[in-house]
Amino acid sequence: MTADKPIGVFDSGIGGLTVARQLRRALPHEDLVYLGDTARVPYGTKSPATVIRFAREDTQFLLRQGVKAVVVACNTASAWALPALEQGFQLPVFGVILPGVRAALRRTRAGRIGVIGTTATIRSQAYSRGLLSRSDTVSVLAKACPLLVPLVEEGWMRHPVTLAVLREYLRPLRRRRIDTLILGCTHYPLLKPALRAVLGPGVALVDSAESCARYVRERLAHLGLLSARRRSGALHSFVTDEPERFAERARQFLGGVVEPARKVELAPWTGGVR
Amino acid sequence: MTADKPIGVFDSGIGGLTVARQLRRALPHEDLVYLGDTARVPYGTKSPATVIRFAREDTQFLLRQGVKAVVVACNTASAWALPALEQGFQLPVFGVILPGVRAALRRTRAGRIGVIGTTATIRSQAYSRGLLSRSDTVSVLAKACPLLVPLVEEGWMRHPVTLAVLREYLRPLRRRRIDTLILGCTHYPLLKPALRAVLGPGVALVDSAESCARYVRERLAHLGLLSARRRSGALHSFVTDEPERFAERARQFLGGVVEPARKVELAPWTGGVR
Repeated sequence: MTADKPIGVFDSGIGGLTVARQLRRALPHEDLVYLGDTARVPYGTKSPATVIRFAREDTQFLLRQGVKAVVVACNTASAWALPALEQGFQLPVFGVILPGVRAALRRTRAGRIGVIGTTATIRSQAYSRGLLSRSDTVSVLAKACPLLVPLVEEGWMRHPVTLAVLREYLRPLRRRRIDTLILGCTHYPLLKPALRAVLGPGVALVDSAESCARYVRERLAHLGLLSARRRSGALHSFVTDEPERFAERARQFLGGVVEPARKVELAPWTGGVR
Repeated sequence: MTADKPIGVFDSGIGGLTVARQLRRALPHEDLVYLGDTARVPYGTKSPATVIRFAREDTQFLLRQGVKAVVVACNTASAWALPALEQGFQLPVFGVILPGVRAALRRTRAGRIGVIGTTATIRSQAYSRGLLSRSDTVSVLAKACPLLVPLVEEGWMRHPVTLAVLREYLRPLRRRRIDTLILGCTHYPLLKPALRAVLGPGVALVDSAESCARYVRERLAHLGLLSARRRSGALHSFVTDEPERFAERARQFLGGVVEPARKVELAPWTGGVR
């Protein structure tokens, strides 16, 4: 039965586990198949054409694992590849951008919304266009923050250097007095305390992982694709680089024990698989 | 004639142009074919098995371009893949580690040598083993510095944040009073002024790009593979991601005008090409 099949989740690497974590909270009975393309991480510094190619290969792999839907946990892939995936594959594909946009529009009071993300995500203007197409009254200030993922990967979540980097990146957003900030990258939820310290309590932080999980639940319910089972869902993980490092670091992003990932090589997209 | 064929150079991305730059200085009449694997950059965070696979594909591509020798500009690939490349391909393959080791041993007075590089390069212990196997009297302190490449990519070569990061990374090396520091990554030559500011004038900086170029000239001469032509050599570049960003940024690393790169897709290593 289709509804009992797992949900597929892919990301450029390990960061998408923050989305898997929220999916497990929102949909505790669903099985998840996670793919982290750790051999080619990051996507956020790459070109649109390359991100689309990688996203197709990721989706094709998940489809071959028998998933009922695909969640694009990577903001950069969501920003560039979602139309190509919706067109190329006949199953529901959900990204993180639209849910983040909707959550930000619900949260903002003054209508001044900031967006931070990778260079490629910000260059896509996906969040800005999504916000401005749904509201006539908001203003959006987007800022690429390429150092934040490396700082999280280094484990410097509350390091003075990270605070200094955030102060520099967020200066134009603070000057414009944003009241809402979209965390447009899987790694950024781990920076919430540092963001809070720099921005103060007056700015709402929109975690796109959280809003994505709620959105996926809503859409799967609408499509009649929620599993009726009542046991706890399982999480099976695959990576394209060696799995050792994944195991070491997955716990931090998932917030719990992760079973070992299996290594896979991704096939080129054939264009024929649906 | 084999000696008139170009020299192949590959790197995980754009940083290897610092090696191409030194090769052009040391060997101005040689043609160069440069491959930057910009779709899969960086290598420095990936596992040995994946780095070896990528390096084989890079070398195979260069071989098909008719090169007479291959220079592995990437420190991480030099650290992990050199034996596999020497074994798998019948042409001279030169890395950056051995030249850096020899240069550091010539430069050091007190025998206290520091090494900085990516996580994968430092984990390989390639520099440490190279130094300790050639000298009984040196002590080596190696330190992984994963934030330095992102800082250079962000253009923050002299930014206060970069100085703060360097002070933190280099603290154990300064405490041990190193007198020589090997810059074990293609991006680090761009940080020389910042390194100088943090370390002071008493520490010799060994630029592995410079020492590599001298080493390649010496080895090619020994093998009778130096071109006898006296015109200026050409540089042809290939990348695996879209070439636009390469063009924007190549000048900074090469220190001069770069002709546009062509995009290529790398074939899986067949194991059969020699």
